Amino acid sequence: MNKTKISAAELERLAKEEVPVAGEMGVVIDRVAPGEVDARVPYREAFIRPGGTVAGPVLMALADFVIWGVVMSLIGPVKLAVTTSLNINFLRRPDPGDIIANGRILKLGRRLAVGEVYLYTEGKDELVAHVTCTYSIPPLEPAGS
Amino acid sequence: MNKTKISAAELERLAKEEVPVAGEMGVVIDRVAPGEVDARVPYREAFIRPGGTVAGPVLMALADFVIWGVVMSLIGPVKLAVTTSLNINFLRRPDPGDIIANGRILKLGRRLAVGEVYLYTEGKDELVAHVTCTYSIPPLEPAGS
Amino acid sequence: MNKTKISAAELERLAKEEVPVAGEMGVVIDRVAPGEVDARVPYREAFIRPGGTVAGPVLMALADFVIWGVVMSLIGPVKLAVTTSLNINFLRRPDPGDIIANGRILKLGRRLAVGEVYLYTEGKDELVAHVTCTYSIPPLEPAGS
Amino acid sequence: MNKTKISAAELERLAKEEVPVAGEMGVVIDRVAPGEVDARVPYREAFIRPGGTVAGPVLMALADFVIWGVVMSLIGPVKLAVTTSLNINFLRRPDPGDIIANGRILKLGRRLAVGEVYLYTEGKDELVAHVTCTYSIPPLEPAGS
Repeated sequence: MNKTKISAAELERLAKEEVPVAGEMGVVIDRVAPGEVDARVPYREAFIRPGGTVAGPVLMALADFVIWGVVMSLIGPVKLAVTTSLNINFLRRPDPGDIIANGRILKLGRRLAVGEVYLYTEGKDELVAHVTCTYSIPPLEPAGS
Repeated sequence: MNKTKISAAELERLAKEEVPVAGEMGVVIDRVAPGEVDARVPYREAFIRPGGTVAGPVLMALADFVIWGVVMSLIGPVKLAVTTSLNINFLRRPDPGDIIANGRILKLGRRLAVGEVYLYTEGKDELVAHVTCTYSIPPLEPAGS
Repeated sequence: MNKTKISAAELERLAKEEVPVAGEMGVVIDRVAPGEVDARVPYREAFIRPGGTVAGPVLMALADFVIWGVVMSLIGPVKLAVTTSLNINFLRRPDPGDIIANGRILKLGRRLAVGEVYLYTEGKDELVAHVTCTYSIPPLEPAGS
Repeated sequence: MNKTKISAAELERLAKEEVPVAGEMGVVIDRVAPGEVDARVPYREAFIRPGGTVAGPVLMALADFVIWGVVMSLIGPVKLAVTTSLNINFLRRPDPGDIIANGRILKLGRRLAVGEVYLYTEGKDELVAHVTCTYSIPPLEPAGS
């Protein structure tokens, strides 16, 4: 596997046009490689929760989208792949700032794909959250999708 | 424990004023009892994902908020309680429609509270998702919060 | 679905003969109904961990086995079904005593089955742990298996 | 943090003497560094499940023990630390062989510690499972423990 099957630009476009939740958050794709996606959610005041911390659902939505991208980097656009499970551990209250996600594949099977995502605040070394996420891959994609 | 320590109206107001993600989704609280919260997210086209299904992050954000409410129904407003982990299993693609959440406490400890949430589409019997979620309870709340 | 597709006796035999970990623990099946299995692990000193509590792995192994049984109660013996994920929340330190498990199906799909298990100590009302568990169902079982 | 607060030999002794489940499996500690533990479970026929694969509970018990070790490598022996949650994704059926675990800390807090574990079969590159696990750290340890 030498080449990603989806580009950063295509992935960013999918976020905007097909996944309203990710689109509304303004997800930016920083890098795509086969089995790896780096993305970010630019900081916005609307994400803040009591205590001055970025809301957990923003992290979950970002991680979910990133693993979708990781799967597509390996097998190409599969719009109908669906999340079957997601587990998140919140590790530190994220300070206000861009949320950075580094996602990678753990296992690509014929029916299921599992990935993990490390989440940071821009400019900080410490993890704010860790996610594992499983996608179900549909048996067939209609031609041209 | 005979009486909820937070009302449905107070919880709905917190969603609007303090938890922008839940507020934007327009979370409605249907019922609060000690250790139990029923809530819903009214249907909106913006929640739809490829395949015509309600986006996973909407379900996760709703469940996360509902367990916060479940904790507050038992110990009163604790704005600074934070989610420490959340696990979701997506069981069926939710049809377009209101998403209904039935949340309840599994364990209320001094430091951690664990709850589970059953998620449905309005008018259907079958679960669309199941969530377990852990909150960390802060040792002290500033007076008046 | 009116009738279980596997009996308590068959399930107990499978634990003994095919699943050495469950067999060694001496799993007892108390009840099987379609989509529901109640089982127990009789108390043994060897299960105790520092602090006088039953070891977590005993609870995990029991829950994993119970969901296998729940799946088989619905579709018959599928020895090759494999766990794809398991999430456990430990809620209270279990006192020494039999561990009781009540498992039930959340979703039976063609490819994946998801169940949940409530774990108690015999004679106590309070949950000691909660498990969700996903099994992958093989496309085909060899005839006679 | 330059030096582990527990040695491989001490950890192996704890497995044998204090954690019967880990002891029975014959856990071997290959390496301990601050925030990192590598361990293995030597192959034994009794671990095999239908389909010729190592049983999931063996992987869960190993991972649970390894994260306990990871926590102790950072804060010294805390026998009363307890697992609060564990999430495992089974990625491939492990072939018969030693199970290798590489565990590391994700977050060490005052009250909770979160770690992750990568599980392999000896001599193979591909992951067989991935675990995240949270331990609750007791406020006080009796002197001398």
